[in-house]
Amino acid sequence: MNKMMNEMNEIVEQIQKASKIAILPHVDPDGDCLGSSFAVSLALQKTGKKVQVILENDRPEMFHFLPGSYINYEAAEANDDYDTVICLDSGDLKRLGKRYVIFEKGSVTVNIDHHATNTRYAQYNYVDVNAAATGEIVYQFIHQLRIPICHDIATNLYVAISTDTGGFKYSNTTAKTHAVIAELMETGIPIADINRKIFDTMSLVKLKLTAAAIERIQFYHEGLICVIVLPNDLLCDLGVTEDDTEGLTGLAKSVQGVEVGVLIKEKEPGVIKVSFRSNEYIDVANIAASLGGGGHKRASGCTLNMNLDEAVDVVLKKLEEAFK
Amino acid sequence: MNKMMNEMNEIVEQIQKASKIAILPHVDPDGDCLGSSFAVSLALQKTGKKVQVILENDRPEMFHFLPGSYINYEAAEANDDYDTVICLDSGDLKRLGKRYVIFEKGSVTVNIDHHATNTRYAQYNYVDVNAAATGEIVYQFIHQLRIPICHDIATNLYVAISTDTGGFKYSNTTAKTHAVIAELMETGIPIADINRKIFDTMSLVKLKLTAAAIERIQFYHEGLICVIVLPNDLLCDLGVTEDDTEGLTGLAKSVQGVEVGVLIKEKEPGVIKVSFRSNEYIDVANIAASLGGGGHKRASGCTLNMNLDEAVDVVLKKLEEAFK
Repeated sequence: MNKMMNEMNEIVEQIQKASKIAILPHVDPDGDCLGSSFAVSLALQKTGKKVQVILENDRPEMFHFLPGSYINYEAAEANDDYDTVICLDSGDLKRLGKRYVIFEKGSVTVNIDHHATNTRYAQYNYVDVNAAATGEIVYQFIHQLRIPICHDIATNLYVAISTDTGGFKYSNTTAKTHAVIAELMETGIPIADINRKIFDTMSLVKLKLTAAAIERIQFYHEGLICVIVLPNDLLCDLGVTEDDTEGLTGLAKSVQGVEVGVLIKEKEPGVIKVSFRSNEYIDVANIAASLGGGGHKRASGCTLNMNLDEAVDVVLKKLEEAFK
Repeated sequence: MNKMMNEMNEIVEQIQKASKIAILPHVDPDGDCLGSSFAVSLALQKTGKKVQVILENDRPEMFHFLPGSYINYEAAEANDDYDTVICLDSGDLKRLGKRYVIFEKGSVTVNIDHHATNTRYAQYNYVDVNAAATGEIVYQFIHQLRIPICHDIATNLYVAISTDTGGFKYSNTTAKTHAVIAELMETGIPIADINRKIFDTMSLVKLKLTAAAIERIQFYHEGLICVIVLPNDLLCDLGVTEDDTEGLTGLAKSVQGVEVGVLIKEKEPGVIKVSFRSNEYIDVANIAASLGGGGHKRASGCTLNMNLDEAVDVVLKKLEEAFK
């Protein structure tokens, strides 16, 4: 604990000395890395520093409402004389994409993250695997820097923490998480609006896909296994993107009485992506590993290079074995 | 504030004097009244009092996991010599159903609630309309009674508060709500499991109904109005209960770009239940009122005694007017 306190203090010291700071969220930005990045940027701007959030490309539409500005990689390139580079929520340097060149040129590099797999790639690293979100760590940093948390910073941190905890529902949520959220809410942020935007807004495509997925639900092993198979032509017909299928494995898992939910998606003919989720006792990391994939006990996946029917057979056989 | 503190202290005093206590949640029990009732009952049992939670009938299956015992009205009748009766989460005496006779016989009656419409029907009343849930008030009472909050009490209060706030997403959620949840989580309750049981478990019937509802979605007024019409024969075919259709108006409202979501349900031929939800600016209380119903600005409803096609026409006309 003392070691981490020292690491935090060292980073605070470096940030206080910095004058032009680049903030790098990871590629394919999510709520946690965007909210954390904008929060740090808004906080440091209050202290008179020049700060720029630099994205690989654009941010997803659902996060357009987040207060905070950014430039993309191309705009940054022409202007990359940052003395300090802060990476947020990125487990390794690959997560920086093309912006690695900006990191490389930084005189001082900082890595703030909560992923257990973090490679501690920067000069100064602060990795707290017990934090529910990088946003939870950023909250502490802003406190340590004695910068008051305004409405806009609170909005960003609320989104960071709520998205990474699935709306405070996942097991990474702690008492501390709720205590931080209580503090953020003292600024009067409109949480009902925020939650509607991040959790309760669905594209029509995603909605139609959900209906199609439900129609395709199949049960095995006396209802303990629930499988959704999505052939490529259906995905093309509906105009589905990668993001749209997220959550469908969870849907399969959520059916009453089901232990394992499975999504078998024909990404293209011959390339089948399979994801597994379990509720209580089946170790789906094992199942995925036996098919060349990986993951966690309750959430895993693999890619099978075969046709869809073969893939369904292979997956069902492995699943049946797991219940023996 | 002082007045409420006095009211709380008076109730605490009465509870401390009580020896045999009946706890009455409201009819059609939800997470807040059940969680609050079991929490109070478990807490007071620790102090050596005889306490009985008395339900009108049974509790919904999703709440079977709540720690705490109860008897139903029939079992209580034979045994109804309670000196103190505590009503939880009930806005008026009608919410007690047949158990009104138990309330009537109580020497001391207590009413603890958070509904703005509460009629203060008991001898001792504590109504805090700023509390997100009755569970939030019960937390304070248990503190005031100096009874330690154990794992089982925390589980009940967590469910009470999380269900009444839609998983901390609704506007009734406050900083205090999260501060209370932080305290409850210090007992180590398995919140991921709890949340899965209360928020992420769906019956197959509800799932099939969701798919059917999505297939029936119609848009009007350039996508600002999203309407789902459910004919009675569909509801019968799927074996849908009243509970299953809950949430579908929210689904209509959640489609990207939609301002008003509407569910038009043919409960039986000639009896059409309509519910309205809006996102930002349309006052659906007005729309419902103009059709003989009522509710809030962002959530309202009415019942129309006409055939389904007529009802759809009437509702669409009112909606189009609201956008003028």
